[in-house]
Amino acid sequence: MAFDRLVRFQDDEGKIRYGNVPYEFPSDGINGTKLQILKGDLSSGFSKGDGTATVKKLLCPLETTPIMPCIGLNYGQHAKEADLPIATYPVVFQKPADALTGPYDDVFIHVDAQSKLDYEGELTVVIGKDGKNIPEDKALEYVLGYTAGNDVSARNFQLPPNSGGQFGYAKSFDGFAPIGPCIVSTSIIPDPQQLDYVTKVNGEVRQKTHTSDMIWNIKQIIAHLSRGTTLRKGTAIMTGTPSGVGLFLKDGFLKDGDVVEVSVTGIGAIKNRMVYEK
Amino acid sequence: MAFDRLVRFQDDEGKIRYGNVPYEFPSDGINGTKLQILKGDLSSGFSKGDGTATVKKLLCPLETTPIMPCIGLNYGQHAKEADLPIATYPVVFQKPADALTGPYDDVFIHVDAQSKLDYEGELTVVIGKDGKNIPEDKALEYVLGYTAGNDVSARNFQLPPNSGGQFGYAKSFDGFAPIGPCIVSTSIIPDPQQLDYVTKVNGEVRQKTHTSDMIWNIKQIIAHLSRGTTLRKGTAIMTGTPSGVGLFLKDGFLKDGDVVEVSVTGIGAIKNRMVYEK
Repeated sequence: MAFDRLVRFQDDEGKIRYGNVPYEFPSDGINGTKLQILKGDLSSGFSKGDGTATVKKLLCPLETTPIMPCIGLNYGQHAKEADLPIATYPVVFQKPADALTGPYDDVFIHVDAQSKLDYEGELTVVIGKDGKNIPEDKALEYVLGYTAGNDVSARNFQLPPNSGGQFGYAKSFDGFAPIGPCIVSTSIIPDPQQLDYVTKVNGEVRQKTHTSDMIWNIKQIIAHLSRGTTLRKGTAIMTGTPSGVGLFLKDGFLKDGDVVEVSVTGIGAIKNRMVYEK
Repeated sequence: MAFDRLVRFQDDEGKIRYGNVPYEFPSDGINGTKLQILKGDLSSGFSKGDGTATVKKLLCPLETTPIMPCIGLNYGQHAKEADLPIATYPVVFQKPADALTGPYDDVFIHVDAQSKLDYEGELTVVIGKDGKNIPEDKALEYVLGYTAGNDVSARNFQLPPNSGGQFGYAKSFDGFAPIGPCIVSTSIIPDPQQLDYVTKVNGEVRQKTHTSDMIWNIKQIIAHLSRGTTLRKGTAIMTGTPSGVGLFLKDGFLKDGDVVEVSVTGIGAIKNRMVYEK
């Protein structure tokens, strides 16, 4: 796949395009920047297109996804703050495609999902080719690249008396999976276990971790998710959140207008405002 | 949608087609039968096509699905046998599209999923048009039709010490959602809470229930699943299983070669052999 940092954007003529960012993703975004166009898509693969285009609005790097498997309790400190035992296998739940939204998009919050709204900054892995029964030592060959994600969570629907203990519903609302700003290729990030990331709410640091602290690493997660199960290209895997979620902090839940920023070294930041529906 | 009972099949020239069954679905299947062809698909809608075709092999009525939301613990007797409390809202988990398989197809079981293999007969609802925040009193307008399903479950991956309590992974293997044999329109089944269904293993009755015993009815399930969340056409919802699953019976788990049959009044039966991979 011929890119360094894949972005999807609307250009100044209103066309939706893929492009390549050849330098570290700037913290103030890339609006107004001219980028090399990429042709193709996730299904056919990407190659260098003709000419350049100017970014008017950065979009979610994935137009859609077959499914978003997510890993729960994948950092020891978070399992500890949640007072939940570490399971024998990775803890898996899923989000649907409509949960995807762009790196700077507002996330609209349904009235019933506002009482205990929470953030979870997560390293997100995008699968680049179909695979099944992928062994750990081949797992990274199936990765298209890495991006930052926020596993937005309406905790009122996640607490066991309301959910029967299932995590997915609370996290599957439209827009509850902002990802971006770009998908960084595996040639730029050869080892996904060597990344720092930080989650901020209104500029205040809430989560800070290093991906070497994952209980299940990316290779193990891909092997587990593909066991007897076809993992399709375009699948976006959220790999779990560290400690510091709002649920376990005093006044930690998100309020109307709060801005959540998740930034990963070498990937860049997503920054989404929570907008409460009335 | 212009059909009584929608089927998808391979005809005797190898072409894949949709067709209509105008009479009650026969218990011995419809191979060799000539059917009215339907043109279109789930996305464009179905209408009467030109001529007829002969059924060579009946296929899964859905070619794919955006996602399969499933309801856990939706029958009081099953919640009781599982010794789990009834939650405030429907208990939701999800299966991916690759779990779909045909009404008479073998289900291939990965070596790691064989130790506690189980069946769950379920009434399955197929959504016919996109909706969000669907009120209960309009919910059935979004239904394309009803079919029978088996929520095949590898219980070893579902038990809390192995799964962190999440149900989805154990039920998301390729082929773990056989459905069919047809999708029966809402004009033929105006009230989905008036259906009997039975699950048999090698001909022996294991589950027997009436859909009036659901804790959450179809209208409530659709309203809940569409709260702040776009429910896409083609979504197949498994609505929960009654008591009698293998987990709570002596020697109840499925063995290599076992045949599971789920039949619903007015819909017909699916019949799938479990084939253990080596």
